[in-house]
Amino acid sequence: MTKHDLTLLSAVHAADAIRAGRITSEALVEACLARIEMTDHTIHAWAYLDAGAALDQAREMDRIRKAGRPTGKLHGVPVGLKDIVDTRDMPTQRGSAVFAGRQPEKDARLVEHLHEAGAVILGKTKTTEFAFMHPTDTANPFDPARSPGGSSSGSAAAVAARHVPLAIGTQTGGSVIRPAAFCGVYGFKPTRGTISRGGVFRTSVTLDQIGGFANSLEDVALLIDAVSGYDQADPASFARPRADMLGGAQAEAPVAPDFLWLDFPFDDRLDEDASEGLSALIESLGGRVERATASPQLADLVNVHKVIYDYEICRNITAIAEANPDQISIEMQDAIGRGAEISSARYEDALRVMASAQTFFASFFNDYDAVIAPAATGQAPMLSSGHTGDSVYCLTWTLAGLPCLSLPLLVGQDDLPVGVQLIGAAEEDDRLLRTAAWLQRSLAAQQQTGE
Amino acid sequence: MTKHDLTLLSAVHAADAIRAGRITSEALVEACLARIEMTDHTIHAWAYLDAGAALDQAREMDRIRKAGRPTGKLHGVPVGLKDIVDTRDMPTQRGSAVFAGRQPEKDARLVEHLHEAGAVILGKTKTTEFAFMHPTDTANPFDPARSPGGSSSGSAAAVAARHVPLAIGTQTGGSVIRPAAFCGVYGFKPTRGTISRGGVFRTSVTLDQIGGFANSLEDVALLIDAVSGYDQADPASFARPRADMLGGAQAEAPVAPDFLWLDFPFDDRLDEDASEGLSALIESLGGRVERATASPQLADLVNVHKVIYDYEICRNITAIAEANPDQISIEMQDAIGRGAEISSARYEDALRVMASAQTFFASFFNDYDAVIAPAATGQAPMLSSGHTGDSVYCLTWTLAGLPCLSLPLLVGQDDLPVGVQLIGAAEEDDRLLRTAAWLQRSLAAQQQTGE
Repeated sequence: MTKHDLTLLSAVHAADAIRAGRITSEALVEACLARIEMTDHTIHAWAYLDAGAALDQAREMDRIRKAGRPTGKLHGVPVGLKDIVDTRDMPTQRGSAVFAGRQPEKDARLVEHLHEAGAVILGKTKTTEFAFMHPTDTANPFDPARSPGGSSSGSAAAVAARHVPLAIGTQTGGSVIRPAAFCGVYGFKPTRGTISRGGVFRTSVTLDQIGGFANSLEDVALLIDAVSGYDQADPASFARPRADMLGGAQAEAPVAPDFLWLDFPFDDRLDEDASEGLSALIESLGGRVERATASPQLADLVNVHKVIYDYEICRNITAIAEANPDQISIEMQDAIGRGAEISSARYEDALRVMASAQTFFASFFNDYDAVIAPAATGQAPMLSSGHTGDSVYCLTWTLAGLPCLSLPLLVGQDDLPVGVQLIGAAEEDDRLLRTAAWLQRSLAAQQQTGE
Repeated sequence: MTKHDLTLLSAVHAADAIRAGRITSEALVEACLARIEMTDHTIHAWAYLDAGAALDQAREMDRIRKAGRPTGKLHGVPVGLKDIVDTRDMPTQRGSAVFAGRQPEKDARLVEHLHEAGAVILGKTKTTEFAFMHPTDTANPFDPARSPGGSSSGSAAAVAARHVPLAIGTQTGGSVIRPAAFCGVYGFKPTRGTISRGGVFRTSVTLDQIGGFANSLEDVALLIDAVSGYDQADPASFARPRADMLGGAQAEAPVAPDFLWLDFPFDDRLDEDASEGLSALIESLGGRVERATASPQLADLVNVHKVIYDYEICRNITAIAEANPDQISIEMQDAIGRGAEISSARYEDALRVMASAQTFFASFFNDYDAVIAPAATGQAPMLSSGHTGDSVYCLTWTLAGLPCLSLPLLVGQDDLPVGVQLIGAAEEDDRLLRTAAWLQRSLAAQQQTGE
């Protein structure tokens, strides 16, 4: 007997179908669990999974629906959580033996929002050690010899493998955008401060930001809507309304948007096939893309990012590393060493440059709807390289706290995904999503007419 | 020069007009402040008001709107907060000299939600001492010699006097429904656990519930939507989706709803004019209202409520009262005395009866869409009585945690408002609001046809 494969449903459609009673959450979660059972021995996306508890949540959401009680934005839809997001009913192990079996007492704030949205928390996805650089054993679903990217490795791989339609990740450098690009899924890191980091492991109070993964633009917008919210306890959180993400993804642009491509001095790190693909894409957009060379100050922001990241992660991890010297990776030890050498004067200078960059970007998007850029330097690297890939194309925008999207629009020389990144104005995430939807429609129309 | 009186705008329309740029939040807040300036010397609704800070918030919301950045559900709409709701930028004095000048460090969780909704926090409204019985100097806007009811005295009076279109209150006995009835406004206390009590002064962990006031059904629904949310730190908060309140208030009932009227042994406390008005209202609904006599167990729930309330408020206030014996009212001292005499066995029995009442009500609303009941025993009492009125018609439903609405549908013998209460099924607040909207339309249609 064949039946409809529910793991192919988008989250938007699944939530609609569950609310309307056309499918049950239980059936959807069962399909996801079956898919995981079938493929996770190769992909290793999950750090923790409790099938029974997930099915209990699903049945509860079905009961609520049948009783005519309120349903949520993600009613009965399963979600994966990067394993640095605390959950009071599942361990949260932060990708490190140091925290093996660690059971938080409280849910992260974003988990409260997921419960309120009616989501089913399927389990915890693998993260690199402390969401930094030392890789997990997670494989890229497109080619198990390749890396899924990091640090949100398991979240990106789980969504790409259709283990789950939605997953939460975090980005301090390029940890949402890069794995999304490598795994051929949509990654979205909204404006800094949109989503509370309460209950999420801190590596850098200045740079850590929350984002998500999905298999469509609408789905990733819906996910971010569900977890957005102000939290006075998070110093980055802003006490203002959040963008309507799904509304943005579903909106028509009032006029064709304007894009900017910036040439950076590190463009020699971009693979030739990715470079060609992006050039062709930009070419196809004709006059809609302006090309400029990044100023030396703009190009230097990647170094400013590095100073802040190394300085702060060192302060956050040193005590853990000193107490567990044998359980800390070389990458982490090196970063701690680098961070310890950064003077507070140099760090404070870096923070000042970051603040002036934010001021610069506040008016930058008066002339452009989005910057169009690589999401990574090309296809996913081999697992055997020991690296999760180069995040250089993400650092500038993460530092500035701007909303960033990775769209799986290109294919590289080995038939592996190559992501295209769009970056928009702070707190105008809806405009960025609308611009991305325009871009997708425009490319689809070109393909239909054979242009 | 005459101009449109913005204080007459509903919150729903004001938020729409501000988002569309037809009016500014600044103009709306100025109109509210002018109205307060003109009448609060008689009404005494406000415990704290900072006109400058309110105007700053309003201008900020206008700037956000003009910049094309995201707007919220209550964008630029002023809201008053009962002065037991903590605010980090305004004192929170709990209606007691004990807490004069008390400045919280954190906002209550519901205040976070208001900021996220784009609301302007206009100020703090007067509450009876510790939201219990000892009255404030707040007067009823319909007749300044009368009480506005309590304990959310200032919130109800401020909304009735058009000082502000929306205000937050709390109900442990009847402190939202009763003042709404006396002041001729809409009061809504949603299902227990819909709104977090984090940062709200605790009198009874079992009974304290959050609600709101407005001048229309849609407005009060919108307000509750804006502040609803799950909070794991609040033991009553439920980790499930909340009802779409505004959607409920705007929905058409699929069929004409069924109501139940219950005769209670305490009906002799109902004033004759209120009794006649309610009878006529029920008569006009014809066969839609079933009439029954409350069982002895159901009728006794008001006593169960009293045991729990006295027991818990005693435990919460005793330390404060002992440290400040000269600053505690007789009413409060009496309640502490009563509570101290309740054994833990009797209290636990009361909790068990409450739990079985909740089980009883879980199926009760299979046959009825709403219970229709008095909101209070009649018109507002005289201020000179020293009492804020009788809450007997609220206690059963507060104890059961059911959603309750007060609708200003009747007028008493002195031309003062008399409220009608509707009570619905737990976590089906949208159905209750839809039922209330049907009732209002039905009565309006009768008046038009002169029936």
